[in-house]
Amino acid sequence: MQVESKRLAAVEAVKEIKDGMVVGLGTGSTAYYAIVEIGRRVAEGLRIRAVATSVQSEELAVSLHIPIVPFAEVETIDVTIDGADEADGALHLIKGGGGALLREKIVAASSKRLIIVADASKTVVRLGRFPLPVEVVPFAHELTLRKLAALGCEPVIRQKDGTQFRTDNGNLIVDCHFGAIHDVEGLGLSLHGIPGVVEHGLFIGMADKLIVGHEDGSIRVLTSTR
Amino acid sequence: MQVESKRLAAVEAVKEIKDGMVVGLGTGSTAYYAIVEIGRRVAEGLRIRAVATSVQSEELAVSLHIPIVPFAEVETIDVTIDGADEADGALHLIKGGGGALLREKIVAASSKRLIIVADASKTVVRLGRFPLPVEVVPFAHELTLRKLAALGCEPVIRQKDGTQFRTDNGNLIVDCHFGAIHDVEGLGLSLHGIPGVVEHGLFIGMADKLIVGHEDGSIRVLTSTR
Repeated sequence: MQVESKRLAAVEAVKEIKDGMVVGLGTGSTAYYAIVEIGRRVAEGLRIRAVATSVQSEELAVSLHIPIVPFAEVETIDVTIDGADEADGALHLIKGGGGALLREKIVAASSKRLIIVADASKTVVRLGRFPLPVEVVPFAHELTLRKLAALGCEPVIRQKDGTQFRTDNGNLIVDCHFGAIHDVEGLGLSLHGIPGVVEHGLFIGMADKLIVGHEDGSIRVLTSTR
Repeated sequence: MQVESKRLAAVEAVKEIKDGMVVGLGTGSTAYYAIVEIGRRVAEGLRIRAVATSVQSEELAVSLHIPIVPFAEVETIDVTIDGADEADGALHLIKGGGGALLREKIVAASSKRLIIVADASKTVVRLGRFPLPVEVVPFAHELTLRKLAALGCEPVIRQKDGTQFRTDNGNLIVDCHFGAIHDVEGLGLSLHGIPGVVEHGLFIGMADKLIVGHEDGSIRVLTSTR
């Protein structure tokens, strides 16, 4: 049962949160369980402050009485717990299926530790089965899509309710079907080199720990060797 | 007289526009003169189609009966004429003083040729006297500014009329005072590596020709050796 394996991984990750920490709250179905577990610990007396990667996660946290603080008041984020759409053995990730990749990456980049929670279906030998989400500014996006296609993918503008999906930042998400990605770092640099690309869903060398919940109730933990 | 030297450079650049071309229209005080000259040539019978890098330039073009076409209808842009805040001898540029750097860079990156027009005050031996404009998403910008500062600059959020300036894309402009920039390519990569940075004002290896108007009425032309 996938739901239970997600919850198992999330509960394991939340064990790392200690009194006094600033915690980054991720977005998505697995991060949901982490926030619920943090709320349970806070009700038991855990004292933390949190920042959120989406309006959705912030509202959930507030409903659970988790203290949310503005970024201006945060010196450093001690640990962020978030999900991923794909993770390989080197702990490189594809994120952005939920459309919050830019905010998630900003928070991850300022976190001392990034813990990724997932069920076993998200682990892969090589990234790219899941289409890579790329956040693109709407202005002249036809030009940007042509440059994405020139990198060897089939770019598809994400739709929602029959219209173009917009991110919290007012941008488009373009799902890029690359197939197996052999040079993760090189692709990341090429994508950043395209004006009009705001951010991409490759999280390279950012995760410190990957906690995978399995359907038999077991947990597998991978730690970054960096 | 600076105005006259800007006009001289702009008129020289517009000589390169031929019948049937798709032309990118820049933004700013020197690009203004180029658009006015294009309007004069169109009134004389020049047949072109144009795309604009700002609402302001589009409105000027429309008032001069220059045919503006949507980006979706454009296969390629033959030539773009734009200004710059600084240009060095290798034709690397700093742009973004007017706040339109992202749209200018998207159009420049899809143009077969980019011609930069400027008065002599814009040419420098080394970039960086002019603060480097960086377009930043508003979300958690406090974190992004800390990462910019860590690159060795003093980042200042641009203000307008007593409030934070917003770009056409809804983002902030952060003016980064680096002083002389010794490694232009390296800085460009570092800036792109910061999540929250949408785009920066370094135009590296993009300009094909730099036309500089001087106060004595002379023109100096630098051509890229790439």
